[in-house]
Amino acid sequence: MKTFLVFLVSGLASSVIGLAQQPAARTPTAPPPINWPSPALPGGPIMVETAIERQVQVTVTKGLNQPFSMAFLPDGGILITERAGRLRIVRNGVLDPAPVAGVPQVHAQGIGGLMDLALHPRFAENQWVYFTYHKLVDEKSLGRITLARGRWDGKALAEVRDLFSATQSGNASRIIFGRDGMLYMTVGIGDPPAALRAQDPNDLAGKVLRLRDDGTVPADNPFVGRAGYRPEIYTLGHRNALGLAVNPETGAIWECENGPNGGDEVNILQAGKNYGWPVVSYGRFYLGPRVSVNPWREEMEPPLVFWVPAIAVSGMTFYTGDKFPNWKNHLFVGGMRQGEVPRSGHLERIDFNAKWEELHREGMLRELQQRIRDVRQGPDGLLYLLTAENDGALLRMEPEHKN
Amino acid sequence: MKTFLVFLVSGLASSVIGLAQQPAARTPTAPPPINWPSPALPGGPIMVETAIERQVQVTVTKGLNQPFSMAFLPDGGILITERAGRLRIVRNGVLDPAPVAGVPQVHAQGIGGLMDLALHPRFAENQWVYFTYHKLVDEKSLGRITLARGRWDGKALAEVRDLFSATQSGNASRIIFGRDGMLYMTVGIGDPPAALRAQDPNDLAGKVLRLRDDGTVPADNPFVGRAGYRPEIYTLGHRNALGLAVNPETGAIWECENGPNGGDEVNILQAGKNYGWPVVSYGRFYLGPRVSVNPWREEMEPPLVFWVPAIAVSGMTFYTGDKFPNWKNHLFVGGMRQGEVPRSGHLERIDFNAKWEELHREGMLRELQQRIRDVRQGPDGLLYLLTAENDGALLRMEPEHKN
Repeated sequence: MKTFLVFLVSGLASSVIGLAQQPAARTPTAPPPINWPSPALPGGPIMVETAIERQVQVTVTKGLNQPFSMAFLPDGGILITERAGRLRIVRNGVLDPAPVAGVPQVHAQGIGGLMDLALHPRFAENQWVYFTYHKLVDEKSLGRITLARGRWDGKALAEVRDLFSATQSGNASRIIFGRDGMLYMTVGIGDPPAALRAQDPNDLAGKVLRLRDDGTVPADNPFVGRAGYRPEIYTLGHRNALGLAVNPETGAIWECENGPNGGDEVNILQAGKNYGWPVVSYGRFYLGPRVSVNPWREEMEPPLVFWVPAIAVSGMTFYTGDKFPNWKNHLFVGGMRQGEVPRSGHLERIDFNAKWEELHREGMLRELQQRIRDVRQGPDGLLYLLTAENDGALLRMEPEHKN
Repeated sequence: MKTFLVFLVSGLASSVIGLAQQPAARTPTAPPPINWPSPALPGGPIMVETAIERQVQVTVTKGLNQPFSMAFLPDGGILITERAGRLRIVRNGVLDPAPVAGVPQVHAQGIGGLMDLALHPRFAENQWVYFTYHKLVDEKSLGRITLARGRWDGKALAEVRDLFSATQSGNASRIIFGRDGMLYMTVGIGDPPAALRAQDPNDLAGKVLRLRDDGTVPADNPFVGRAGYRPEIYTLGHRNALGLAVNPETGAIWECENGPNGGDEVNILQAGKNYGWPVVSYGRFYLGPRVSVNPWREEMEPPLVFWVPAIAVSGMTFYTGDKFPNWKNHLFVGGMRQGEVPRSGHLERIDFNAKWEELHREGMLRELQQRIRDVRQGPDGLLYLLTAENDGALLRMEPEHKN
């Protein structure tokens, strides 16, 4: 803690200022990011090699702008959010040129905007579509992360209303329904000094929240009734959480988050636990100093999986289908890192032993050189991906030889 | 960009053959390694893209078998060790088909054999060539890591004799001369239970040694005269150290070593310090469990740079030349990792701020899909690499437009 405070005074506060004023030249103390744009994807199907499923065919549906998340409708349509605030639909592999109506006004600034999307577990009965977005407060400030719901009427969202208003933060928000029927929602935060909010139990930034499907607080949340604690909080101490998935065997909620320079993490969420940001981390601040000399603390949860250097993790899912039998129960994580490790926007596969301890990682789709924003399993057992690009695309991965 | 895509197409086709030979079953508790052979390199010069020096031309000299190390002779020749026990020479970009005479019998088994190579700092006066190798003890056991020296007579090694006999270990040995004129020598070790030797101060395995140029112990070594400590030891607690370099500004010896699954490290060596293996590590054992829950301990040195997942670090050098001005004082590390992160045999570049804190990493040459065993700067200011392949090669990297 002593070390951390020293960083705060000498390094961290100045790092925020320094980063905002990056000069064009590359000096040892002020590293500018490397701009390495992704090439255009080919239009036709692409054959890619993978380590244990061999040849995989990737089908490309273009025309999306910075897509963020997707949801599979029972009628076969795929709803896709675009960060700037549009909801799109793909039917039979074809993107409808007209956006889906019903999305409220979104404040899309920086990495904010229209974010995640999830169908209610009883969608067949209630047709509820949940989504998160940044709501305008005023033009000068970051938007307010908001959970909303609408009813899918077959063509558009109807009866849209905000369910929960979290906090002002420029960082992203994922949502997922757990097996308990509750909705888990991430609220990200960046580097210090703002990052200290992740350790403040009276602030929703840098937390994963747990809510009922109407946006209210479940009575069994870990901090309900505790003074100085927001009752919506499920877990604390997260940086920018961009992935949530339900473990198919244990039912636990797995979360992944972007670290600073190094220190991307996958965590298994446990009610009331603290995941350490920005007190402990495996990463470094962008100007060089370690976030913490010791990346571990007794009262904080170490990540299950971490990346040094960071791959800029994003959407995440477990594969549970039958189309890729060698990938059963493996974790797939989108990687958005580009520039400093050129051509590394990719999809990462991780497999585990029976105790959910990591065995292998495989980086695939590197040859496409696309940032991968989201990965989901479709009802057809295939894997679907979204690229985090202005000329974004929906990618469908299927075995070379169909069964 | 096109060059890169062409490479993937031609390269990946040949990889498929190797993949077909791996076992189909993949059980959670006994992960087989993935066999993903490197494709053949093209013969002609290759253009590769890099992040801050952009187009770089790579010239290929083929015909080497598992080359391990190289040394630049004042007459322009490049001496190269092959692990099986041969010393080779390249003159004017052409590999002499006849091996250089004078190398003693080498016990090349597993990852042992003829290892590193270094010229004496006053080579112009004494023509001394230093090298390390595994010496046969008996056919059933690992060889004994041995430091030897010969005199370069212009065509061969003469007056070859062993200077120092370290210990039996299957793991590799690098050597380098420091600015203090002393020779630093690594003696690797693997996983537990053998790994416990790395913490035993009366055992040379898992250590970096410091010797005089005649193989004797300098009087100012940190443990001279201390009971229960081998006086040759400079630092303790290393796994398989495969890289050594002298920092061009500070003069400190930098070392890099292979971790287990995750946990490759770069360390700055300080006399008498303990670098933690196998007590603390950022990695996991191959069956899944963490080496240590907390990768940090008060009395042990954390790495300056580490990789999770591991890239299988090998030879390492600082670039100090003028041919690539944007790479000045950057660290280059060879990466030999293949299979689980396919096509990732590569060269890694790391730059630092004025305090030698890490700023960026760049993985380059991934498109070649070659394991990089060693990297050195030539007297011409260009970068030279060796590939850790049976059809191994010497690679020379130079700017696209020569000055």
